[in-house]
Amino acid sequence: MSDPNGMVSFVSSGPGDPELLTLRAIRRLQDADVVLFDDLASGPVLDQAGPQALRIAVGKRAGRPSAKQEHVNALLVEHASAGRHVVRLKSGDSGVFGRLEEEITALRAAGIPFEIVPGVPSAMAAAAMAGIPLTRRLTARRLQFITGADVTGGLPGDQNWAALADPHATTVVFMGQRTFPDMAAQLIENGLPPDTPALLAEAVGHPHQRLLRTTVAGLAALLKAEGPSTHPALILYGPLAEMA
Amino acid sequence: MSDPNGMVSFVSSGPGDPELLTLRAIRRLQDADVVLFDDLASGPVLDQAGPQALRIAVGKRAGRPSAKQEHVNALLVEHASAGRHVVRLKSGDSGVFGRLEEEITALRAAGIPFEIVPGVPSAMAAAAMAGIPLTRRLTARRLQFITGADVTGGLPGDQNWAALADPHATTVVFMGQRTFPDMAAQLIENGLPPDTPALLAEAVGHPHQRLLRTTVAGLAALLKAEGPSTHPALILYGPLAEMA
Repeated sequence: MSDPNGMVSFVSSGPGDPELLTLRAIRRLQDADVVLFDDLASGPVLDQAGPQALRIAVGKRAGRPSAKQEHVNALLVEHASAGRHVVRLKSGDSGVFGRLEEEITALRAAGIPFEIVPGVPSAMAAAAMAGIPLTRRLTARRLQFITGADVTGGLPGDQNWAALADPHATTVVFMGQRTFPDMAAQLIENGLPPDTPALLAEAVGHPHQRLLRTTVAGLAALLKAEGPSTHPALILYGPLAEMA
Repeated sequence: MSDPNGMVSFVSSGPGDPELLTLRAIRRLQDADVVLFDDLASGPVLDQAGPQALRIAVGKRAGRPSAKQEHVNALLVEHASAGRHVVRLKSGDSGVFGRLEEEITALRAAGIPFEIVPGVPSAMAAAAMAGIPLTRRLTARRLQFITGADVTGGLPGDQNWAALADPHATTVVFMGQRTFPDMAAQLIENGLPPDTPALLAEAVGHPHQRLLRTTVAGLAALLKAEGPSTHPALILYGPLAEMA
């Protein structure tokens, strides 16, 4: 029988800069008994947790082995069942490409209450750092987020190319550094102009942040030549405004 | 000749609950000489501004007359040119459907520096309040934002229906209450099942918040019968997870 005081707060860490945490996220971290964090949500954000908090890394990072989802689920249930307030810290906004549903399902099955604290998505932070809007009144009227990697690390099959090759949308590709050369070839085949503006945003909000403005074809060539960096990165493409 | 100390911070207010402001947003509000705010970014968020701040409403609200964009641009330039630190407070994330580009262009023309402080988009807040993720591993692998109203208040023409009627995407419609009955008819004509889950999220993060879970066809019928409410609302549709 689980302790009725236990609960889980899914807390969105934002891009990693603690100034981009919400007040509610900071309060939850300060009050937490246990914090389960991904690699991308560590560092100065994790430092906001109180001294009493047990910190548990469940490191998920593109291209590296990570704790199995079942293991993360089991830890959440175990600590909350013991009456603890568990913060599950997820990078960016926790509802976007974060496997949130699997964790919610496990909590429901165990009868454990939860809340979701929304946050600053890394895509919004990347655009802000570049000084550009994500939508533009006449030219970029649709904004879309996709992931460039499935569980195997490959480009997910069965893409909606009519949506992705649309020159009137801003597209943000999460975890797409490895697969972007393949993706770009398919985008161009589906009619997207090769000189469509593209932005590589690495380590947004971190001291080693890098923003590189190029084109879809140029970025594909660069990533093919250099290989993906070890930093997390987003790729934006579409009718991007001039950078600040 | 403009005073070199003047600048503009575009500050994202989030959905309206001050606990969902970032630390950086609060600091900018506390330090501001002037705050230019939309109706949707007023209330307890605006209360975070310091007592010294001159508060100027430039009220934009769906369905109501609003200050002309040129007037907002002129106010930004005027106050920043006089050496003031101006906060331009925009609801949700400032880079999403917020006419940010027009204001940046005016500042550039006047040689005034600016920064963008990203925030919690109202779409992320709506999903969090409903207890659902915005993406789902196998069923909702693309997330897209569109606006349901152009400058005339009508459904913007020339939509990418292949993108919008995709049953494997979560779609968030901003300012779509008035046009959703028309939009739903076109979605269904383009192959989206009428019983696709839909969520109407009104006044997210405010005391009179309302979350209504229905279907695309059901929501279209409801909005046709009831008419749009006076509260700001988002519409989400797609393979939405069960609500908490």
